[in-house]
Amino acid sequence: MAPAPTRIGLAGLAVMGQNLALNIAEKGFPISVYNRTTSKVDETVERAQREGNLPLYGFHDPEAFVNSIQKPRVVIMLVKAGAPVDQTIKTLSAYLEKGDCIIDGGNEWYENTERREKAMAEKGLLYLGMGVSGGEEGARNGPSMMPGGSFEAYKNIEDILVKVAAQVPDSGPCVTYIGEGGSGNFVKMIHNGIEYGDMQLISEAYDVLKSVGKLSNEELHQVFTEWNKGELQSFLIEITADIFGIKDDKADGYLVDKVLDKTGMKGTGKWTVQQAAELSIAAPTIASSLDSRFLSGLKDERVAASEVFKAGGVGDILSDQAVDKKKLIDDVRQALYASKICSYAQGMNLIRAKSIEMGWGLTLGELARIWKGGCIIRAIFLDRIKQAYDRNADLASLLVDPEFAKEMIERQSAWRRVVCVAINSGVSTPGMSSSLAYFDTYRRERLPANLVQAQRDYFGAHTYERTDMPGDFHTEWFKIAKQSKI
Amino acid sequence: MAPAPTRIGLAGLAVMGQNLALNIAEKGFPISVYNRTTSKVDETVERAQREGNLPLYGFHDPEAFVNSIQKPRVVIMLVKAGAPVDQTIKTLSAYLEKGDCIIDGGNEWYENTERREKAMAEKGLLYLGMGVSGGEEGARNGPSMMPGGSFEAYKNIEDILVKVAAQVPDSGPCVTYIGEGGSGNFVKMIHNGIEYGDMQLISEAYDVLKSVGKLSNEELHQVFTEWNKGELQSFLIEITADIFGIKDDKADGYLVDKVLDKTGMKGTGKWTVQQAAELSIAAPTIASSLDSRFLSGLKDERVAASEVFKAGGVGDILSDQAVDKKKLIDDVRQALYASKICSYAQGMNLIRAKSIEMGWGLTLGELARIWKGGCIIRAIFLDRIKQAYDRNADLASLLVDPEFAKEMIERQSAWRRVVCVAINSGVSTPGMSSSLAYFDTYRRERLPANLVQAQRDYFGAHTYERTDMPGDFHTEWFKIAKQSKI
Repeated sequence: MAPAPTRIGLAGLAVMGQNLALNIAEKGFPISVYNRTTSKVDETVERAQREGNLPLYGFHDPEAFVNSIQKPRVVIMLVKAGAPVDQTIKTLSAYLEKGDCIIDGGNEWYENTERREKAMAEKGLLYLGMGVSGGEEGARNGPSMMPGGSFEAYKNIEDILVKVAAQVPDSGPCVTYIGEGGSGNFVKMIHNGIEYGDMQLISEAYDVLKSVGKLSNEELHQVFTEWNKGELQSFLIEITADIFGIKDDKADGYLVDKVLDKTGMKGTGKWTVQQAAELSIAAPTIASSLDSRFLSGLKDERVAASEVFKAGGVGDILSDQAVDKKKLIDDVRQALYASKICSYAQGMNLIRAKSIEMGWGLTLGELARIWKGGCIIRAIFLDRIKQAYDRNADLASLLVDPEFAKEMIERQSAWRRVVCVAINSGVSTPGMSSSLAYFDTYRRERLPANLVQAQRDYFGAHTYERTDMPGDFHTEWFKIAKQSKI
Repeated sequence: MAPAPTRIGLAGLAVMGQNLALNIAEKGFPISVYNRTTSKVDETVERAQREGNLPLYGFHDPEAFVNSIQKPRVVIMLVKAGAPVDQTIKTLSAYLEKGDCIIDGGNEWYENTERREKAMAEKGLLYLGMGVSGGEEGARNGPSMMPGGSFEAYKNIEDILVKVAAQVPDSGPCVTYIGEGGSGNFVKMIHNGIEYGDMQLISEAYDVLKSVGKLSNEELHQVFTEWNKGELQSFLIEITADIFGIKDDKADGYLVDKVLDKTGMKGTGKWTVQQAAELSIAAPTIASSLDSRFLSGLKDERVAASEVFKAGGVGDILSDQAVDKKKLIDDVRQALYASKICSYAQGMNLIRAKSIEMGWGLTLGELARIWKGGCIIRAIFLDRIKQAYDRNADLASLLVDPEFAKEMIERQSAWRRVVCVAINSGVSTPGMSSSLAYFDTYRRERLPANLVQAQRDYFGAHTYERTDMPGDFHTEWFKIAKQSKI
């Protein structure tokens, strides 16, 4: 039992919830915790004692839990998105009073947050949808947090969030008020889409180095360790280097080689791709990462297909081609970096398009800043993105920022070499090649879209514009062609 | 005024509606027509007289229109998807009686059809959602039709549909009962997604031949005319050949060069891509065609980007590279055909996944059959797809059908050459390259997805499977890596 009202409450004590509660307590904010399955409450209380006698107080009863928190009360929920969130809101709001606030810290669909915020407002309650990134480790030691919704609610707990968040030297805590409504969830969703893209691109770099360059796990460990000292320095490159260094504890060899090539997913990548289509924003790098997860799941089909095509001689096209290992490693590093720029350009443009549609007024550079620490995509690279938007807040695309443009120009030859060597080796690089196609499409003044529009006018009278005069035109293509054939 | 009850009614007399009504009348079925804007009614009646004194009767009043049709009444609506459909249903159903039927012939979202079918059923009315493809010309002379919903309603007008549909020698009329609920609209939506893919792939073939091969419009006209005699024979290749042959009537040169490179769209491509994500089916070729339409629309941004990158030397990489024109043309033909197989494999797998989810029991080979004539994607190629499903109705993918697999094996070298020459010329081929990546991903026994899953287990404890033993495993990657660093 808490000796006096606590500062904040947290409901939902799976690992993420436990860790975030312990983090808050450790930063000096007394916290009440609650979970429907009460053993989780006791487990969390034990951890709080074990991890430094932290001011964390467990409750088995929701009413006592709510009443233990100082007013205006703030309760963070960390439960599964969807129905469990509605259920938890129902349970808690029975005891909450006007001015109190509920914060959803899960990966919720932004429209659900908007619906709930409205419903809560009718009862005089405040609501925030707050994306939390960084996994279990981030939650415990400093996550990146993306709170959106009631600004008043944000102000009530800003002092807690800025201390609980990851701290990045020279750039501050990894939290900011994102904007109104479901903007915090939306931004977190795109963050996850970008994370999908990063992981896909890294896996392609691995594939090319391993399948074409014949690098061993030891060599891969060294390469990624080296890369993590330069422009690619990031959490994902760091853990990739770690992974290649770990031996199997159940059999000979390295563990990574024993992991089945099937990738799971939880929904935010899918939402990102669907929103891209909805917003008319091309996001092929992120989409290719989702497709690759889908195809990875068809393991049995792939095994069967590989038999069909091996018999036809596909798959070993360049097996006796000489490869300059050192040059390949350097090329792949550049290809990975250039592709990454395309992926982030897509993610940022998705956020901007949604912000305009919803009137959220989001600040892209500030988002890059709060992703610099705590979250899965944290990287030195994000500092360059922040600088690009600092230089020009209205940048049409990261691709045309002078610094990024220069980097892409310097890397494009290596990038083209890597994609072509992969193609000629029968190794797929869907992320790198779709990024390159995105770059080559975006930077082209004249696309063959004139033919597509001419076709649409031919069979559907959809009209077309001309390059040399204003107006909408329609041509009787069929009639003219028929006449000329006579 | 009709002399006796007509056989069927049609409401919504824009060009598609007018043409379909005239087609029905011409096949010997007396038809009543209605439109809210009555001038369209008079216009249609005049056309019916002019085009052969066809048995078509116009009505300015919805009640008189409905009463003029023999029972059980059938009314086809051809109005804009969404609210106009609901409005038209409201108007008509005020006068319809039990057992009567409304057919929506527009590109409607399948869930709207399912909702309406249920609402109609409560009033004892029948409902069909029927995709109609073939544009204006198809509607007038024989479209491909995809009716889904009430089987009883389908049987009531089957005699009309089989006569009105396009007729293909040796394979019959291009119509069949698709299945229950919104299946007709869903299948039409995927048809349109495939159409997007075909148009994109053709535009890329054009771009490579023009930008790399330096072919003139006359040469392009000849190449596409020639292609239309072989395995690529299709409506879209035919009209593409026509387009290259048409001179500008407002200035010197060819019209295609004056058409602005911005492509419009109307929603079915977007839905296809969103459904692909929903169904966990990779459809990168179709997605790349949607992305290309989005990017085509950013004309001003592209012009600005081209300036930025031209200054950096991007864009003319291979300008002095010698090109064997004849070989390039042959390679591009093969690349187009192989990419097309991937695109149709994606579309067919989308339909199957939805059919399983909804319990529709759709027959993929039969769909290929009704697309052989009347519609925009009609092609000799569809016969091969029908044969593939006749050989094996449970085919996991068109890619592993023995005949298609053989064709892809024969064409893969040319396909890889085309994508690489495009990449090295700075010409984007997002459809061809994503198709190739799809092929190279699907036919690979082992993907680098093991790394992605290892990363997910590292930062999120998402667990992984192993290649050598059953079960779900979790490794404390961070702890192990930390120990080894000490």
